[in-house]
Amino acid sequence: MTDNASTPSQILLEKDGPIATITLNRPEKMNAYTRHMMAEMIAALDETDADDDIRAVIITGAGDRAFCAGADLTPDDGTTPFSSTKNVTDLSDEIVRDGGGRLTLRMFQSTKPLISACNGVAVGVGATMQLPMDFRLASDNARYGFVFAKRGIVPEAASSWFLPRLVGPQQALEWCMTGRIFDAEEALSGGLIRSIHPQGELMDAARGLALEIAENTSAISVAMTRAMLWRLPSESHPMMAHRVDSRAIYTLSRGKDTAEGIQSFLEKRPPQFPGKVSQDMPEFYPWWDEPGYE
Amino acid sequence: MTDNASTPSQILLEKDGPIATITLNRPEKMNAYTRHMMAEMIAALDETDADDDIRAVIITGAGDRAFCAGADLTPDDGTTPFSSTKNVTDLSDEIVRDGGGRLTLRMFQSTKPLISACNGVAVGVGATMQLPMDFRLASDNARYGFVFAKRGIVPEAASSWFLPRLVGPQQALEWCMTGRIFDAEEALSGGLIRSIHPQGELMDAARGLALEIAENTSAISVAMTRAMLWRLPSESHPMMAHRVDSRAIYTLSRGKDTAEGIQSFLEKRPPQFPGKVSQDMPEFYPWWDEPGYE
Amino acid sequence: MTDNASTPSQILLEKDGPIATITLNRPEKMNAYTRHMMAEMIAALDETDADDDIRAVIITGAGDRAFCAGADLTPDDGTTPFSSTKNVTDLSDEIVRDGGGRLTLRMFQSTKPLISACNGVAVGVGATMQLPMDFRLASDNARYGFVFAKRGIVPEAASSWFLPRLVGPQQALEWCMTGRIFDAEEALSGGLIRSIHPQGELMDAARGLALEIAENTSAISVAMTRAMLWRLPSESHPMMAHRVDSRAIYTLSRGKDTAEGIQSFLEKRPPQFPGKVSQDMPEFYPWWDEPGYE
Repeated sequence: MTDNASTPSQILLEKDGPIATITLNRPEKMNAYTRHMMAEMIAALDETDADDDIRAVIITGAGDRAFCAGADLTPDDGTTPFSSTKNVTDLSDEIVRDGGGRLTLRMFQSTKPLISACNGVAVGVGATMQLPMDFRLASDNARYGFVFAKRGIVPEAASSWFLPRLVGPQQALEWCMTGRIFDAEEALSGGLIRSIHPQGELMDAARGLALEIAENTSAISVAMTRAMLWRLPSESHPMMAHRVDSRAIYTLSRGKDTAEGIQSFLEKRPPQFPGKVSQDMPEFYPWWDEPGYE
Repeated sequence: MTDNASTPSQILLEKDGPIATITLNRPEKMNAYTRHMMAEMIAALDETDADDDIRAVIITGAGDRAFCAGADLTPDDGTTPFSSTKNVTDLSDEIVRDGGGRLTLRMFQSTKPLISACNGVAVGVGATMQLPMDFRLASDNARYGFVFAKRGIVPEAASSWFLPRLVGPQQALEWCMTGRIFDAEEALSGGLIRSIHPQGELMDAARGLALEIAENTSAISVAMTRAMLWRLPSESHPMMAHRVDSRAIYTLSRGKDTAEGIQSFLEKRPPQFPGKVSQDMPEFYPWWDEPGYE
Repeated sequence: MTDNASTPSQILLEKDGPIATITLNRPEKMNAYTRHMMAEMIAALDETDADDDIRAVIITGAGDRAFCAGADLTPDDGTTPFSSTKNVTDLSDEIVRDGGGRLTLRMFQSTKPLISACNGVAVGVGATMQLPMDFRLASDNARYGFVFAKRGIVPEAASSWFLPRLVGPQQALEWCMTGRIFDAEEALSGGLIRSIHPQGELMDAARGLALEIAENTSAISVAMTRAMLWRLPSESHPMMAHRVDSRAIYTLSRGKDTAEGIQSFLEKRPPQFPGKVSQDMPEFYPWWDEPGYE
């Protein structure tokens, strides 16, 4: 971690009712990614996870040109753009860890839905940091690029795990082996993004999706669903999913959110779920051990 | 198991040549799912697997309104809708097991192709029970809902394993995190279903697909194909698939179905495969140990 | 291996700048697959991997009718079409190994991008050998068939691992359970192929994609990307991808390709990467143990 408390903040974190918005805020640098921005985003996700009032998180870029133009290739602090300047011989040393991956692995553990509002250029880590988000919305001027092979490096931020799952191997290989910049239409037809919106309507569309989740569902259910749908398909057999969902339904159906869910359905009224992620998750959550870097 | 022999049957099982049809038959309750229906469906699948004349199984709902409106939320027998009324502290107890998952895991083991003819509303377990089927056909009035988060529970019936495999993580997360009810068009564009048909033509379309399989292929080949395509992609390397298909081709190419397959091809006539699933599967089938609940 | 040096060659291997083209060359037999062709293709891939000047490999069929009409069902040498004529009782014996899988597992290990230019009929192993390639392009007269169940055998060449990953379970099951022959349009809408081209423009389209890779990217980056995107999604957690990409970026960012990648980007000129796959891959590559047949 190279976070520096004296460095000016490079992101904004705003809350509006059940929605938090994280804005990458270096518009003069096309919101290019730095170690400092990484640390601030991880801290922001710690806060959105800890705040029970927040039901969804939107991540966007400042200005109307870029979501994030990738790693800052000419950082002010003299560090190398893609990796630490310190040299180690042991590749399992923490210093070796890619800064994009530190962020995407933190996103992977989020208990709140993450919504990308991609408002412009998104290349390198600007593209890969969107992959562990649950939903990717784009403005019509958005452009994407998994440009790593053009820079002599490799897809980072654990994108080799995420991207083929989202778009299939053939599309993932084409984008990563050519390093091509492509527009929102190609991103949509390739399965990367969920929808395209005029630039001026992008944030409203993201908020609409966030509110659809917030107003209709249990926060406990959504946090469980997030972990289950991202993690359980990796299991070799559906039995592991059956174990987790059986335990979850058995436990939750004895709690207050399920009672309210059934009652509100039978009374044909909107639900008011009392459960809080900070204290009401089933006791067996998390059911996995999060692996270390090593 | 809470099957009760004195309870009136809640399904129909009909056979017509090589096709069996299972009909969820509680139209006055929109074919809502009960423990009794679960036990009857599992028994029906035991029968279709044991009957060598049956080459494909269609599953549909009675009436023209619903395939299955989910778990019966107001069951006559006083049980809770989603889970056992008995309390246990050990979550590995069999009593904890979700009734939807008991059915979908049985479907997962079917040796016959399963075809969903979704003739109307399919929410909750009515949607998730279709996921382990091989093909999902829908009438134009079909509607789907993975509504669990709206009821304070989680996606069940091992759907957290099946749904992201079928439609990708982004689409699966949207349907499960919003709990939204969506129509057949959204189901088709999202990759959930294979085709949409006018209500009056749905069963003919399902039968057409069943007959295409029955009239052209070896039952042994199809049973092997079903196990291979659902199970082997979970392996970390294609070598396991190479092991299984090498053994299968070596074994089967010395048997009567392959001889008939080549002969009928060279003679340009329809094949008449003599092999029976009940007795002619390769000796190494099943090549896996089916896991228990625990 | 049943390669016979006295048998006339059944393939062509041509090199043109950074592109190698392998042509299945038995047009009078619709380029039907034999053990001899298999051995020649594996040898050709050994050569394209060893030649640092080659940046991509196109695989096509001779003539304008067929890419490959499957295994030769009436081989001249008296062997059985799908399996060895020798009998063994131990199914882990090497003699049992499927000849399609020997080829596709070799393709899986290629360090160069593989591009299929499917110029006509592609059935049986003619279809499955295309699955481990990175990109599948087709002429408008291309037709595909996973016909194994019609012949009394099973999907081979490890296609049970590859096909569901490429097109999803529902589509893979339909093609393999019906054994249906389908055209290029169905292949495109089903996600099997990347694009359709008039027969006369197919090779130019394939070459265009090969050149886009060759002219813009580092060979080291592309070889790493190929291994990462095919292998790492099988891991149960994105951490393994983070380990590999962190080590790769740390190592490569200290090397000459990354320096050239950044420099050429800042100077807005095409890159000239000096790295060679034969000698400059990161020391930890390969990071896996390739499994044996057993």
